[in-house]
Amino acid sequence: PDIILKTDGGFGARTADGQFSFDVTGRLNLDTSYSNGVLNNATQNKSRTDTYIRRGYFGVTGTAYKDWYFEAVMNGTGDQGDGAHFEWDTFYLKYTGWNLADITLGRAVRPFGLEQSTSSGAISTIERAAIWDLTNAGDTESSQQFELSNGNKNMSWGVSIYDNGNTSPSKNSRYGYDGRFTYAPIAEKTEVLHLGVSLDDANINTSSLSAKSTLGAKKSDGVVFATGNFDSDRSGVLEAAYMNGPFSIQSEYLRRNLGSADAKTVDAKVSSYYVMGTYTLTGESRGYKAKAGKFTNISPVNSYGAWELVARYQHVTGDQGISKEANIYLLGINWYANKNVKAMFNIQDITTDNIAKPGMDETGKSAAFRLQYNF
Amino acid sequence: PDIILKTDGGFGARTADGQFSFDVTGRLNLDTSYSNGVLNNATQNKSRTDTYIRRGYFGVTGTAYKDWYFEAVMNGTGDQGDGAHFEWDTFYLKYTGWNLADITLGRAVRPFGLEQSTSSGAISTIERAAIWDLTNAGDTESSQQFELSNGNKNMSWGVSIYDNGNTSPSKNSRYGYDGRFTYAPIAEKTEVLHLGVSLDDANINTSSLSAKSTLGAKKSDGVVFATGNFDSDRSGVLEAAYMNGPFSIQSEYLRRNLGSADAKTVDAKVSSYYVMGTYTLTGESRGYKAKAGKFTNISPVNSYGAWELVARYQHVTGDQGISKEANIYLLGINWYANKNVKAMFNIQDITTDNIAKPGMDETGKSAAFRLQYNF
Amino acid sequence: PDIILKTDGGFGARTADGQFSFDVTGRLNLDTSYSNGVLNNATQNKSRTDTYIRRGYFGVTGTAYKDWYFEAVMNGTGDQGDGAHFEWDTFYLKYTGWNLADITLGRAVRPFGLEQSTSSGAISTIERAAIWDLTNAGDTESSQQFELSNGNKNMSWGVSIYDNGNTSPSKNSRYGYDGRFTYAPIAEKTEVLHLGVSLDDANINTSSLSAKSTLGAKKSDGVVFATGNFDSDRSGVLEAAYMNGPFSIQSEYLRRNLGSADAKTVDAKVSSYYVMGTYTLTGESRGYKAKAGKFTNISPVNSYGAWELVARYQHVTGDQGISKEANIYLLGINWYANKNVKAMFNIQDITTDNIAKPGMDETGKSAAFRLQYNF
Repeated sequence: PDIILKTDGGFGARTADGQFSFDVTGRLNLDTSYSNGVLNNATQNKSRTDTYIRRGYFGVTGTAYKDWYFEAVMNGTGDQGDGAHFEWDTFYLKYTGWNLADITLGRAVRPFGLEQSTSSGAISTIERAAIWDLTNAGDTESSQQFELSNGNKNMSWGVSIYDNGNTSPSKNSRYGYDGRFTYAPIAEKTEVLHLGVSLDDANINTSSLSAKSTLGAKKSDGVVFATGNFDSDRSGVLEAAYMNGPFSIQSEYLRRNLGSADAKTVDAKVSSYYVMGTYTLTGESRGYKAKAGKFTNISPVNSYGAWELVARYQHVTGDQGISKEANIYLLGINWYANKNVKAMFNIQDITTDNIAKPGMDETGKSAAFRLQYNF
Repeated sequence: PDIILKTDGGFGARTADGQFSFDVTGRLNLDTSYSNGVLNNATQNKSRTDTYIRRGYFGVTGTAYKDWYFEAVMNGTGDQGDGAHFEWDTFYLKYTGWNLADITLGRAVRPFGLEQSTSSGAISTIERAAIWDLTNAGDTESSQQFELSNGNKNMSWGVSIYDNGNTSPSKNSRYGYDGRFTYAPIAEKTEVLHLGVSLDDANINTSSLSAKSTLGAKKSDGVVFATGNFDSDRSGVLEAAYMNGPFSIQSEYLRRNLGSADAKTVDAKVSSYYVMGTYTLTGESRGYKAKAGKFTNISPVNSYGAWELVARYQHVTGDQGISKEANIYLLGINWYANKNVKAMFNIQDITTDNIAKPGMDETGKSAAFRLQYNF
Repeated sequence: PDIILKTDGGFGARTADGQFSFDVTGRLNLDTSYSNGVLNNATQNKSRTDTYIRRGYFGVTGTAYKDWYFEAVMNGTGDQGDGAHFEWDTFYLKYTGWNLADITLGRAVRPFGLEQSTSSGAISTIERAAIWDLTNAGDTESSQQFELSNGNKNMSWGVSIYDNGNTSPSKNSRYGYDGRFTYAPIAEKTEVLHLGVSLDDANINTSSLSAKSTLGAKKSDGVVFATGNFDSDRSGVLEAAYMNGPFSIQSEYLRRNLGSADAKTVDAKVSSYYVMGTYTLTGESRGYKAKAGKFTNISPVNSYGAWELVARYQHVTGDQGISKEANIYLLGINWYANKNVKAMFNIQDITTDNIAKPGMDETGKSAAFRLQYNF
């Protein structure tokens, strides 16, 4: 059959009959980040600046015999002078020929949360909210899993059994499970109302775990909200978003319960929410894909690109005997030069409670710049 | 000149005059494996289940000026929560313009054994027989080497000098050598008679070595049949196979002699053979390529794919002072959904002698499932 | 728009309007190296032979909306039996739409030196001169940086702020800077006169550093010319080259000053120069690109390829309390089979002063063979 090609900085080929396709895909995230104060408490509050490859995606996707879709995308990250870090970011096979659900086997993003489901190339801030660090959903961005999922023009669902990374040999604690349901009563090009709920049971045996977050300052020491030996690990997320024209507001709430496995460890509860607003100065709306319950990138309509303002407030509480708290304020501006190129700049102001070591600063600041190229 | 393209889940381009070509190639092997008993003797006979990327091949092959062929295929494996394991699986340049032999330099599969020569995407069981673990041919699937090889419609030969991985600085023990000769008195589409012999001298200086196998249960502790400091390491394999229509039987016998290098180590002899039968319920024959002395994949003729049954018996003996023994029975079923997709399921029953620690089980079971995508 | 394809062992696609392009690129460097004597002083002067992947480049480059160029090329090296070493060799985004300068952000070769700027696929000897090892320019072949650069048919310039790999958290010492200016009064196809100067300040905080080189014998122990804790690290290079028809002569001089940071360390000065002559027996000239101030590969005009002879003399002095010295003589021959394939053979004779341990050899020899494939 005839083969149709495209090149737009990347490359793709597909047969005209829709049976076979092949695409090369990649993402360059070139980041510089700065952090100080409570964010670097473990290293005496020193300020820290770093330039690094935040994401270095490269891979291929393809379709064979119409119903068999695969994705194999590697991620090479790294700091100057550092060792190599290459791994498969996504690596899965999906069968789409069954009416009731798509069947996915392999390494893929799990069905959990709105912002976590949104591609890292399409998020509005440089780093996602702390809630993904704070639950095991964020341990790795993708997991080895068996997933069933489906959706239509107003809703999506997904359930997954996944390898929880617990490598000790024992019978039943190797696999966790989670699921997500989203509903979009409004899902138009310029207006979206999104609601969703996600649940996760990591189904761990006794494991040494921490609920830790860098609070959006990737190369900082980070803050630990709970730690110890636990034998249960359950999380839930509530999702809501409303978009109208160039304006959007989005919020998610996480609750994670960790059950103590020994006398030394106290049961822990971590909760966190964020509220994020975006406004596109050049008038474009964010994209939304109801079938997967996620936002996609802005496509600039003008030759000078699109400009977007972002503000976000986050609140984190860790309750494990004593109560720890953090409040994070973010302002950001994004420039979408064209479909491939995006530049981002964020600043953050952070205040914490019961987190700094005695005599050290309970406040901190961070800033970050990203240049992104997608193909 | 005109360029001819293909896309079939992968992508290829070649000039119509046959001078230049380029192909993207890859393989997804998504495995789940289970093992218990003697297979996990080192960890108290615990049962073990694991889901992982068994092979993650991605790369390119190409031809320049007709006679210069290259292959560069990386392999990224990995377990959830594990570090990254990326390396070049094959990485070589081959000159095909000389009448007497093809000349290969680089990282490639060595000329050794029938099943080892058969692509991992075309083998009939999820894991190859134990004999490849048990000789140094299996230490890595490909070696840095200089190889001469050739073949015709009834026979093949190859000789190789290869880097044996011995990195200690010394003069003569850095390179091993091996060779293989195969003869196929019958080499038709639906009937094949294959005979072959392979010889290897790893040409080691004093090295600390083990002859160890996971006996087809990749994520188990595995069984050691011989170990110590050796200064000679020689192996030989006899190969035989007969295929008629949907039926095939294939058998190989290995003998490996390890010569002691110190007073503490006893000379060791390891021998092993397997007999494997396959039967394609849907009638297809396995492919065979006499010029390389190896089998290739079944190509399903029906839209519902091809179904294949497999049975294998393996016997392993390790003789080093005391005599260790293992018998492994395997049953398997394979589904070739189409040219790209293959699903495999194997169960194994294992009995051993003089292998388990005192008081522990001398039997074990294993099972494995694979979903494969080739492009 | 129309898409124009090419395949020449690799693959490329571009739109006829020049707005978008995509190319697959790679390089296989299959090396065997031998060294003895003073080169392996640390391991008792043992001779050493090794076969390995010196460079395993694979990646893509592309253009989007005419002015945005990206390059993402990974490098997988490795020795037999060794672990995996994959990292991004180059990984950057360049904006070419500004008149005054191209703007580059990401991991790229820094503007420093003639031979360092010349592609590893286009150098005339198997290993570059020792001066790149001896300054921090050679620590890695590419650095995370922000670069401005430009050039025309007779000159080039580049300035760069780069991540110096110093990961300790502190304020001002994370970024070094360097720059290069080249001028070519003659820049014709068959005659070139090139002059250049490069300056670098690594801008280090206190760092433990060595000025060490393998003196062109990549898998040897190497020789240390200066070592200690330093708090300043500045280098300069003078470049000169003249080419006329099949003949070229090229020379560069390095001076590196290292300032002591503690009482134990003595200030160090390292200086080195090389003089290299090449002669193409088959008459071709080397390529030269004035806009980037660098040489490119010979393109053979005959079907039997091009043959090139090379001779190089290097002198290295390290002055840190005592004075160390090395003289290295090289003879080489290169065969360019076609545009893709190149074979190289080098032998070296080395004499040193104050480098060998007492009673050990102050002379050494090395040899190396490379088979290269570029696409």
